[in-house]
Amino acid sequence: MLSTMQDVPLTVTRLLHHGVRVHGTSLITTWTGEGEPHRRTFAEAGARVAQLAHALRDDLGVRDDDRVATLMWNNAEHVEAYFAVPAMGAVLHTLNLRLPAAQLTWIVNHAADRVIVVNGSLLPLLAPLLPGLTTVEHIVVSGPGDRSVLEGARPQVHEYEELIAGKPTTYDWPELDERQAAAMCYTSGTTGDPKGVVYSHRSIYLHSMQVNMTQSMGLTDSDTSLVVVPQFHVNAWGLPHATFMTGVNMLMPDRFLQPAPLAQMIESERPTHAAAVPTIWQGLLAELTARPRDVSTLTQVTIGGSACPPSLMKAFDDLGMRVCHAWGMTETSPLGTVSRPPAGVEPDSEEEFAYRLTQGRFPAGVEARLSGPGGEHLPWDGKSAGELEVRGNWIAGAYYGGGTDGQPHRPADKFSEDGWLKTGDVGTISPDGYLTLTDRAKDVIKSGGEWISSVDLENALMSHPDVAEAAVVAVPDDKWGERPLATVVLKEGASADFEVLRAFLAEKVAKWQLPERWTIISAVPKTSVGKFDKKVLRKQYADGELAVTQL
Amino acid sequence: MLSTMQDVPLTVTRLLHHGVRVHGTSLITTWTGEGEPHRRTFAEAGARVAQLAHALRDDLGVRDDDRVATLMWNNAEHVEAYFAVPAMGAVLHTLNLRLPAAQLTWIVNHAADRVIVVNGSLLPLLAPLLPGLTTVEHIVVSGPGDRSVLEGARPQVHEYEELIAGKPTTYDWPELDERQAAAMCYTSGTTGDPKGVVYSHRSIYLHSMQVNMTQSMGLTDSDTSLVVVPQFHVNAWGLPHATFMTGVNMLMPDRFLQPAPLAQMIESERPTHAAAVPTIWQGLLAELTARPRDVSTLTQVTIGGSACPPSLMKAFDDLGMRVCHAWGMTETSPLGTVSRPPAGVEPDSEEEFAYRLTQGRFPAGVEARLSGPGGEHLPWDGKSAGELEVRGNWIAGAYYGGGTDGQPHRPADKFSEDGWLKTGDVGTISPDGYLTLTDRAKDVIKSGGEWISSVDLENALMSHPDVAEAAVVAVPDDKWGERPLATVVLKEGASADFEVLRAFLAEKVAKWQLPERWTIISAVPKTSVGKFDKKVLRKQYADGELAVTQL
Repeated sequence: MLSTMQDVPLTVTRLLHHGVRVHGTSLITTWTGEGEPHRRTFAEAGARVAQLAHALRDDLGVRDDDRVATLMWNNAEHVEAYFAVPAMGAVLHTLNLRLPAAQLTWIVNHAADRVIVVNGSLLPLLAPLLPGLTTVEHIVVSGPGDRSVLEGARPQVHEYEELIAGKPTTYDWPELDERQAAAMCYTSGTTGDPKGVVYSHRSIYLHSMQVNMTQSMGLTDSDTSLVVVPQFHVNAWGLPHATFMTGVNMLMPDRFLQPAPLAQMIESERPTHAAAVPTIWQGLLAELTARPRDVSTLTQVTIGGSACPPSLMKAFDDLGMRVCHAWGMTETSPLGTVSRPPAGVEPDSEEEFAYRLTQGRFPAGVEARLSGPGGEHLPWDGKSAGELEVRGNWIAGAYYGGGTDGQPHRPADKFSEDGWLKTGDVGTISPDGYLTLTDRAKDVIKSGGEWISSVDLENALMSHPDVAEAAVVAVPDDKWGERPLATVVLKEGASADFEVLRAFLAEKVAKWQLPERWTIISAVPKTSVGKFDKKVLRKQYADGELAVTQL
Repeated sequence: MLSTMQDVPLTVTRLLHHGVRVHGTSLITTWTGEGEPHRRTFAEAGARVAQLAHALRDDLGVRDDDRVATLMWNNAEHVEAYFAVPAMGAVLHTLNLRLPAAQLTWIVNHAADRVIVVNGSLLPLLAPLLPGLTTVEHIVVSGPGDRSVLEGARPQVHEYEELIAGKPTTYDWPELDERQAAAMCYTSGTTGDPKGVVYSHRSIYLHSMQVNMTQSMGLTDSDTSLVVVPQFHVNAWGLPHATFMTGVNMLMPDRFLQPAPLAQMIESERPTHAAAVPTIWQGLLAELTARPRDVSTLTQVTIGGSACPPSLMKAFDDLGMRVCHAWGMTETSPLGTVSRPPAGVEPDSEEEFAYRLTQGRFPAGVEARLSGPGGEHLPWDGKSAGELEVRGNWIAGAYYGGGTDGQPHRPADKFSEDGWLKTGDVGTISPDGYLTLTDRAKDVIKSGGEWISSVDLENALMSHPDVAEAAVVAVPDDKWGERPLATVVLKEGASADFEVLRAFLAEKVAKWQLPERWTIISAVPKTSVGKFDKKVLRKQYADGELAVTQL
C-alpha cells in the first residue's frame, strides 16, 4: 500500500539551507592566534559556500562526483568546503595532515582528487608531495603562509579569496539522490593500505540528527562548541553538519592546538561544549593546573578517539567540565555510542562514574552484536566478551575501491557475510546496552575456544610494584591454539622473579588465563602515537629474539 | 560515485527492537481509575507485541498491507498495536472516537479495515456501527466493558488477552521497505469527506528522531511523559514511537481524561512532561485552582492542536509547568514547529514570552514558505502574511484514495503543483524562522490583492467594552473582490453605534482594512468544538438574512 507522505532526499544541501535560513545569525569563530578572532555568521558563510561552488564549477571545472580534497585546520573556510563540495554534487575528501608523506600521496592518488584546498600554513607539508600526485589539477590556498614553496609547482595554484570574489552568493543547487557520495575519509590503520570510507548524504543527514538528539551531544543554539577534534578526523565527529541543523555556534581553533592557546580561547570565547581526544585534553589539564584560568562556561566535554582515563575524567569533573565518553571510528561516522548514565542512577555516585567510564549506550540508529571466538553471537550480560559488530545507516558496509570507477570492496575480516561492520574492538555489552571495550580483536589471545584479554593481564601486571611496563601478546601454542606471552619491563633496581609475578597475577585473573611464557625486555616497542606495538613483539618472538622462560 | 555506507531501512520495527533491547526496563503505566495503575515494561510489551502479531496473522489471517484499526484510549495495549501492526507489514488505522457515527462508518469502509481492536468501554459506540461496516471481519476487545452489546454481531468477536495468550513471544519480523505504509489517520475537516493520511515507516522513524532532538521535546529516559493527546490523534504526536527510541516512560490516562483524575495521576505518578490540547489543560487548571495538589514534577507541557491562550500559558508558568507551544496537523505527523525561544533572549522577559506564544520555529526536517494572495512567495520579515506551505519527509504529499487499491489523490487546494502541502493556515514567519499564525486561509478576506486578517479585526473589536463577541467574515464586493463584514454581539445593556466602533477599530488597524458593512447578531454561531462557524454567517449574509448597515 502506498504511503501518502512526501519524499524529500536527506542531503547536506538541506542542512546548509536550514542553517543559513533559520540560524543565519549563529557564528563560526576562527582563532587567529593574536588579535580578534575571525567571526562569520552562518548566513555569511552560506553566501561564500555558493561562491565557492561557482568557483569550483566554473573556474576549476569540477563536475559530477569529482573529488575535492581539503588539507586544512578547523576554520570557517574548511566549513565552507564541507558544504559547497557535497551540495554541488561533488565529493569532499578530507586529508589527515598527521599522516606520513608517502601515505598522503597514496591516498590522494587512490581517491583521484582533482583539487586540493589547503591552508597556507600547511604548504610546507603539501609542496614536497606535489610531484607524486598524479590526478591533482588545482591547488586552492587559504589563509596565512608563505606561498613561495609552491613556485614551479605543476598543478595550477589559486588564492581562495580571489577565486570566490565577485561570484554570485546564491547557487542553483542540484536535487541529489540521498544515497549519493558526499564525503570521504581514509582510515589510518597500522597495517595494510589506508581504507577509504565514503559517506552518503543520507548517512551524514541521519548522523547529524543523532548528534542533536537529547541523549547524544544535546546542544542548542545557546551553545558554543569548541571543535578541537580535527575536521579531517571523521568529519570532526559530525559537528559542522550537526550545528547547521540546530544553530549551535562553532569555535574553531585553526592551527592553535597547543594547551596555552586552547586555554586562552576557552577563557575569552566562553564555549559551553568541547569535543576532543584524550591526549589534547591531558595537555590542557596540565596547562590549567599550572596557570589557572576562568573556564567556567565549559561544562560539557565529549571525549572519544580512545578511552578516557578515569583520572582525567575525575580531574575535569573537579574543574566543572563534565566529560561525556563516546565511542566511534572512521567507519561509524563516528557516533557509535555515547555514555550518558541511565535513569535511576544517583548523580555523582560510584555507579554513575562506572557508567560514564563505559564507552556508552547504543542509540536507535546503531544496532550492535558481539561475535564470540567461534563466530556465535554472545548475550548482553556485561560479562561475555566478543568482537563488536555494528549495523546502521551511518556505518560503513564496504571500503572505496579506488581509481575513478572503483567498486567498493568488502574484506572478510572487516565485514560479516550479512553486511555488519566488524569493528575489531572486543568488549562486553550490559543488559541495558552499555558497551565496555577491553581489547583490540587482534590483541586478544584465542586460547582453546575462549578469549583472554591482553589488556586485563597487562593492567594486572603493571599494578605490581616491581613492574614498570608489561605487554601481553598471543603466541602460537600446539595444544590451545594461542597462549599469552608476558613481556615485562622491570623498574630500576628490581629483579625478575616470574614465579612471584605469576602468583601475583593468580590473585587477579582466572587460572587458565595465567601465562606460561615470560620474558624480560628493556622497553615495550611503541607506535608513532605511543601505543604498545604488539606486532613487533610477536615478530621478535617468532624470530626467536626473545629469551623466554617457561613456567 | 557509490557511497560505501550500509543502507538499513528506517522502520517502526527498528524502533520496537531498540526500545525492547536497550530500554527494556522503561515503563508504560496505564491509569485504571481505582487502585494501582497497571505497569508494563517495554520488554514485556515487546513480548506481547510479538504475540499480537502472531494472533493477527495466524488466527485472524491478516496479510500484506491489510488495515487493522484501533478504537482505543491511550493505554499499553494500544501501544502494542502501534508496533505489532506496522512491524508485521500491515497498516495501523487509528479511529477517532469523537467522530459522529456516520463519519466513523464512512472512514472504516473507505480504509477497508479488516480488523478493529477496541476497548471494552467503547463497545457502546462501536456496536451500533457494525451493520454498516462492509469490510470488517474481526473485532478484538481489550479491557473492561460490557461485551453483551456485541451479541449477534456479524464480525467475529475475540478477547485480546485470550487471542494472544500462549503465542510465541518473538516474531520473525519481515524486512520492510521504509517507504511502505505503516499507519493511517483521517483528518476530521469541517467540509467534505474526511481525508486519509498514510504515514510511511520512513516518515514515522524520522519524525521520532525529530521529537527526540534537543530543541524539540527534548526528553530522556529519566522522564515520564503523560500522554494526554489521544493516540487516535496524529499518533499521539509521535510519542509512542519516540519514547521507544530513547526509553522515555509513558503514563497513559486510558479513559480518565477528566480534570480530577488527571490531577490525581500527576500527583501520584509524578510525570515530568505532558502533551495535550489547550481545552484539556484549561480544565486541569480550574481543578488545580479549586483543589491544589503536588504537581511539582511536571515541569514541561507541550501544547498544540490549537493556539494556547496567553493567560493559560502564564497560569501554568505560575504553577511551574512551562508550556512549550507546538504547531502541526494530521498531515504533518504532526511536528511542524516547536516554540523554544532563540539564543540570547533573556529568560522570563517579555521578549521570551512573545517568542513562546508564536507557533514556533521550523526544524531542519520541515521546509516552509508563505504563499501570498497572488501565489507569490513572501519574505520572512515577520510582517508579510501568506498561506503556510510546508515540505518534508513527515509531511503528506497526497491523500489516500480509498478502497483496496486506491491511488493517492492530490486536490489542488491542498497541494501545490510542486508538491508542497498547503496548510490552510495564514500567518507570518520572522527572519529567524518563527511562525505566527493569524487566520485560517478560508477566513482571510482577500481585498484588492491584499489580505485582511479576520482574527485581527475580531480581537480589536472584542477589546471594546460594549462588545461581547465579534466575528468578521469575507463577503463579495464588486470593486475589491472581497470586503470584511463585521458581525457584533453587544453586551447586555449596550447600544449599537457602528460609527463609534469603526472609530475604535481605526486606532488599531490600517484604514483600508476597516469594514464598511456592519450588523448586530444575538450570538456567533459555533461549531461542535466551540469555534466560530463562519460558514454559517457567510451563508446568512448570502441569503439576505442579516440586516446590514453600510457605513
